[in-house]
Amino acid sequence: MTNMDSVSVRVFSLNCWGIRYLSKYCPQRYAMIGEMLCKEQHDIVLLQEVWSEKDYLFLKKKLASCHPHSHYFRSGVIGSGLAIFSKHRIRDTFLYRYSLNGYPYMAHHGDWFGGKAVGMAILNLGSLTANVYVTHLHAEYSREKDSYLPHRVVQAWELQQFIRHTSTGADVVILGGDLNMHPQDLGNRLLRAYNGLQDSYLETAKFDGCENGMTLIVDNPFISKKELVPFEKGIRIDYILFKGSSKADVHCDSMSTTKGSVPNHPFPYSDHEALTAELRLEPRTPAETGSDRQSKNKDSATGKLAELVDIVTEARTEVKVGLHCAERMRYTAARTGVMGLALLFLELVIAAVPYLALGAEQPFPRTSFYLLAVLCFAMLLTTSMLYIFYTMELKSLQEAEDQMRLGIGSLQEKLKGFRLAQLHNPSRMPPEVQEPGAFEPEE
Amino acid sequence: MTNMDSVSVRVFSLNCWGIRYLSKYCPQRYAMIGEMLCKEQHDIVLLQEVWSEKDYLFLKKKLASCHPHSHYFRSGVIGSGLAIFSKHRIRDTFLYRYSLNGYPYMAHHGDWFGGKAVGMAILNLGSLTANVYVTHLHAEYSREKDSYLPHRVVQAWELQQFIRHTSTGADVVILGGDLNMHPQDLGNRLLRAYNGLQDSYLETAKFDGCENGMTLIVDNPFISKKELVPFEKGIRIDYILFKGSSKADVHCDSMSTTKGSVPNHPFPYSDHEALTAELRLEPRTPAETGSDRQSKNKDSATGKLAELVDIVTEARTEVKVGLHCAERMRYTAARTGVMGLALLFLELVIAAVPYLALGAEQPFPRTSFYLLAVLCFAMLLTTSMLYIFYTMELKSLQEAEDQMRLGIGSLQEKLKGFRLAQLHNPSRMPPEVQEPGAFEPEE
Repeated sequence: MTNMDSVSVRVFSLNCWGIRYLSKYCPQRYAMIGEMLCKEQHDIVLLQEVWSEKDYLFLKKKLASCHPHSHYFRSGVIGSGLAIFSKHRIRDTFLYRYSLNGYPYMAHHGDWFGGKAVGMAILNLGSLTANVYVTHLHAEYSREKDSYLPHRVVQAWELQQFIRHTSTGADVVILGGDLNMHPQDLGNRLLRAYNGLQDSYLETAKFDGCENGMTLIVDNPFISKKELVPFEKGIRIDYILFKGSSKADVHCDSMSTTKGSVPNHPFPYSDHEALTAELRLEPRTPAETGSDRQSKNKDSATGKLAELVDIVTEARTEVKVGLHCAERMRYTAARTGVMGLALLFLELVIAAVPYLALGAEQPFPRTSFYLLAVLCFAMLLTTSMLYIFYTMELKSLQEAEDQMRLGIGSLQEKLKGFRLAQLHNPSRMPPEVQEPGAFEPEE
Repeated sequence: MTNMDSVSVRVFSLNCWGIRYLSKYCPQRYAMIGEMLCKEQHDIVLLQEVWSEKDYLFLKKKLASCHPHSHYFRSGVIGSGLAIFSKHRIRDTFLYRYSLNGYPYMAHHGDWFGGKAVGMAILNLGSLTANVYVTHLHAEYSREKDSYLPHRVVQAWELQQFIRHTSTGADVVILGGDLNMHPQDLGNRLLRAYNGLQDSYLETAKFDGCENGMTLIVDNPFISKKELVPFEKGIRIDYILFKGSSKADVHCDSMSTTKGSVPNHPFPYSDHEALTAELRLEPRTPAETGSDRQSKNKDSATGKLAELVDIVTEARTEVKVGLHCAERMRYTAARTGVMGLALLFLELVIAAVPYLALGAEQPFPRTSFYLLAVLCFAMLLTTSMLYIFYTMELKSLQEAEDQMRLGIGSLQEKLKGFRLAQLHNPSRMPPEVQEPGAFEPEE
């Protein structure tokens, strides 16, 4: 702890829309991104949808002098698409793969093929240890009929679990990425409330960027108006979140987004807007720790805890909806499979007739016979694969639901203790609830 | 911190060998296990290979009064097989799925189909917070030609990463399970050295059980001698590991294993032996923390850190071997696929001859034509699936290798700082290296 001065950290986050040969002007945009990052020299750069390792290597080479430290998170078939570049030495990295990520047969949505995950990098910022997370959750294709909602809620749950359990030793937590959730969406509230993460757009002292901090806007030439309906102007789904600790306070001094175009360039960096947040980390002296915060936040803590219980309960309900849906789908797959098997059996019986009753004519035309057999086999194969897939989906949903049930129980227990303590001795709080918005069991 | 007295905790671990209809005497053995657990009343029961949820529910019902708290970790198609039962309230659970777990086409080994994972449960033991982990790594089928070694090393790496990053806030860490590694195997050394975990068999004051603490023994009637060659007497692959913290010391007062049979029963609980460790947790007063330990362990710290660098380097080499192997396999799959495609093309050309040169005879007998086409399609399908699988394997191996490279860099940096500090001021250590065997970057 040599340096107790405040540290200023500039964090950048961008969904690069980097599908080679499919995303428009991919190489040109990477060149633009590389140039801009070289010029801007952010401390931490968090990128999503860098689907091709070649593009990562291009950036790595380009940023070698300004961002000597980097990590590309590999997972799944295509990769996680996540990358981090840093001015500061990366001490350690770790990757958590979400258990659910859409359906393989929804190939046109493509999410399943990318190994959606959350990447963690641990680095030193001045005297402080920062846990930096980068992630990209499952896209929302329809606001009205969002069949992926349970998956996204489970991803948000796993994200908050991963951050909460891995950041106990961190002085500062920073999370950047494309959450694919509106600010007040369930998963977002879950993430912020459970971990006490703060939204740099809401906390910033100074803001320069799109209206309402939107990151998917109609002014972006890569965006079609249809995609945004019913949010004509745009939506905010990319975030830089942060959190301090007993060792450091974090403030957001300024925050900005790109605005759908880049001066002197014919098109923007991506279909998403880029985010930049300037965070000020203020190491706390041991004396500051504890008492002042405790008294300051005493009143709101019970309320926040109760709110958190409500949010987790809501999430659990959503996961239960997903469970019922997956169960129904698995049942349908099983029924269809059994029908295919019955059909195959019937066909075999009919085919066997001439052999059993010697001399009888083969009742089937040969071609239809083969065609039907192939159909039956295809049906059986498809339904068995679907059955296996839905079984895995069910297991993951059940696991999340179970974790949530436990979590709610612990929170309620804490709330009870908390209310009792308030009742008996309103001036003193039990130590585990001193910090509202950060209800880690480890505290 | 109401209670500063030491707490005694009895931990139980067993690989239940619970494959319904395949494992011998499965229901009878579960009944025996349930009875024994009811009688023994361990504080924490860690079970592996509870493949059927029905069996978990049977145990849950049976143990409802003595172990009111439990969690079944669900993952993959069949499940993770992991379960925890506890006398003490489970506050929180979390699951990490290993990125690699064998090959789906090695169906007779079956590991791939179980969603191998590490489960975490957080509970209070007296005034202390304990992070309890249960896991089961990929089996070793051949000691001489162990093609799964890179997978197991990556699993051990991910296990140590998961424990290290999630246990920063824990006062006590307990890990139980079937690691499928001998005591001096690479993965085991990696796990123990990086996290400073201690082996209860090696640390126990009193031991009662099989020779050398073996858990897979020839005296067990479910074990065939062939499986154990060249270790005629048996091997030790199940463990209960533990670790204290600055808030608590942990000692192992006694440790025992079953010995291949159960009195008054015709067969043992499982093909593995069961482990029981009695741990004594001693909360430390704040005054104790620091100085005494620091001086006691000063000399060995540099050595241990250097040893850790060696171990991680060795692990990295093993992962690189796996990388080369996976690359070769992927190349073979691609080549075979291309051959299948060429064959299909050739066939189509030959089949097209009669249509192009009108009047010419169909050169192919009909049946062989269809058979060959089916063969080509099967070849294409299989090789594409293999190609995708090997690509995923490669990504996971590369990710682990990258994490290891970073880890080695950080450790070497620490070692350098450490040696410099020793050189300049041999009586004082830099604070981050006060605790040998626990080189968490978060410290």
